[in-house]
Amino acid sequence: MELSEDELIEAIRRVVADDHPGVVLGIGDDAAVVAAGSGESVLTTDMLAEGIHFERGSISARDLGAKAVTVNVSDIAAMGASPRYALVSLALPPEVAAAWVVELAGGMRAACDEHAMALVGGDTNRAPLVVISVTVVGEVAPGRAVRRSGARVGDAIVVTGELGAAAGGLALSRADPARAAAALSEPWGRALADALARPVARVGEGRTLAQAGATAMIDLSDGLAKDLGRLCRASGVGARVELARVPISPALRDGADVLGLDPLALALGGGEDYELLATLPPEAVEPAREALSERFGVRLSEIGRIVEGSGLVAVDAEGRGSPLEPLGWDHFARGS
Amino acid sequence: MELSEDELIEAIRRVVADDHPGVVLGIGDDAAVVAAGSGESVLTTDMLAEGIHFERGSISARDLGAKAVTVNVSDIAAMGASPRYALVSLALPPEVAAAWVVELAGGMRAACDEHAMALVGGDTNRAPLVVISVTVVGEVAPGRAVRRSGARVGDAIVVTGELGAAAGGLALSRADPARAAAALSEPWGRALADALARPVARVGEGRTLAQAGATAMIDLSDGLAKDLGRLCRASGVGARVELARVPISPALRDGADVLGLDPLALALGGGEDYELLATLPPEAVEPAREALSERFGVRLSEIGRIVEGSGLVAVDAEGRGSPLEPLGWDHFARGS
Repeated sequence: MELSEDELIEAIRRVVADDHPGVVLGIGDDAAVVAAGSGESVLTTDMLAEGIHFERGSISARDLGAKAVTVNVSDIAAMGASPRYALVSLALPPEVAAAWVVELAGGMRAACDEHAMALVGGDTNRAPLVVISVTVVGEVAPGRAVRRSGARVGDAIVVTGELGAAAGGLALSRADPARAAAALSEPWGRALADALARPVARVGEGRTLAQAGATAMIDLSDGLAKDLGRLCRASGVGARVELARVPISPALRDGADVLGLDPLALALGGGEDYELLATLPPEAVEPAREALSERFGVRLSEIGRIVEGSGLVAVDAEGRGSPLEPLGWDHFARGS
Repeated sequence: MELSEDELIEAIRRVVADDHPGVVLGIGDDAAVVAAGSGESVLTTDMLAEGIHFERGSISARDLGAKAVTVNVSDIAAMGASPRYALVSLALPPEVAAAWVVELAGGMRAACDEHAMALVGGDTNRAPLVVISVTVVGEVAPGRAVRRSGARVGDAIVVTGELGAAAGGLALSRADPARAAAALSEPWGRALADALARPVARVGEGRTLAQAGATAMIDLSDGLAKDLGRLCRASGVGARVELARVPISPALRDGADVLGLDPLALALGGGEDYELLATLPPEAVEPAREALSERFGVRLSEIGRIVEGSGLVAVDAEGRGSPLEPLGWDHFARGS
């Protein structure tokens, strides 16, 4: 790292020009200034640390920057809200090249642009490892944010898209090099790697589910079992999940044998899919499914029902129930 | 670390109860929801990394938590704005005790309470070292945020409080143990250690300076020379600083000989004072000084003038000028 902090901020500022409506004052002052909407602000923050959430050698700087923003946007999406502004704090080791940082900022900018969001501030620091902390401020009409705590007995449980691909991508990244190279020559291999490196935040889908009457919503960052468990605990309810209806990533199915993976286990327990899980009154499912298909080409799967009690039950194809253990990606449990 | 991420969030949530007006939804969901004011939002983020900004053995968890919040509040203060909401992302090594984390959260809560601010969200992660990233959202009347870029030729340069004490505290923390212990038995030694561990954000002072007509303002996080240099570059002006009028911390003067320090050098180049530096029309200085003294018991010193050009000139007691080098606490330059 041969740039000073000021030079680095200036290099980043050039990449993330703040010509965005609503931004009164962007990067470079003590704080950013943005116009306050007529609604409610929605605030979220999420950190990515090297060695825990990513390896510097396994993801491009551009993908990493975009992902750091996207995982925060996903939290805003899970409230049925719209992202508006992002702030970034970076810790960078001395050996990181300035070009890497500019690529990282470029990825952040691209992810912000994708959601018509402005990167309005930040902070850079030296540290022995790369840490990226992003905060996103979103907005929502007063009283319309969809919480985790609103699920009601009898509600249908729905999930957007397909699950398990990011966990498949993680498995692929940890496979031996020859096998990984072979996998990456296959469409399914590239799809799994992409799912991990370039997740998509379901912003429009979240707003659509909110409009459709979602009673509760959460994004799947730590795996279906764990995140559904969180939603149920917050709502004081239980859930029955029909395993045959859990939408498994086709790429994961295609690559499961080669990589020695159990697709259903990854769809239930693997993290970082960033799909949305919501609860809806049963009559709202079909309209929501049609709206998501028409507007975004995204599948909505009804995977079960909210029930009384407090546990999660997995129901197999023969109708037998067993506890669905919330063994997701707990960043403390994993590897420790 | 024996707690899971969810247990840790719950432990923190108990400490940082979100019973604050304006908080629609606090910690525990995908994102927090807050009422949007009728003004402009002011956003800032700042990260503290172990080994760079602090040593875990040299500051209590409580002081560290409070400081992580305070340094962000100081950025809001430097805009003439009021802090309203805070978010925290934490990286924690496995060996950190849960009690340490709860103390850290307690310090954050205390600092938030001091400014009637709500801690509304966060994120915890495992990592090899402690990293604390805080974002603060503040508010200000539309168009009233005081930027760095508004200084005009002829403006007076003023600074709140006294300078150099935090740098003295850092020197003390690096002194040999016998000398440090002796220093800590003296009032000046405790004052220097306190200045480093428990900085104060000048929120009311910032609003008062804004009301008094401040044309530009910045908080002194990286040292007077460096931060005044930033303000001047942003404003396209130069500055003349009269060294005899720079307010040096009395505790630093008292301890300088024992610690072998140059008080003026630390007042000019030492970081982490978190005092405010502002530019004011000359006729506004006296009313601002009286207001700060009456309302907060805080001294306001006029230390120089904004001039044409682009350099910083230090003027000594004999009237001789020399370049004031902007050698502050650049987190990249320091130690690298």
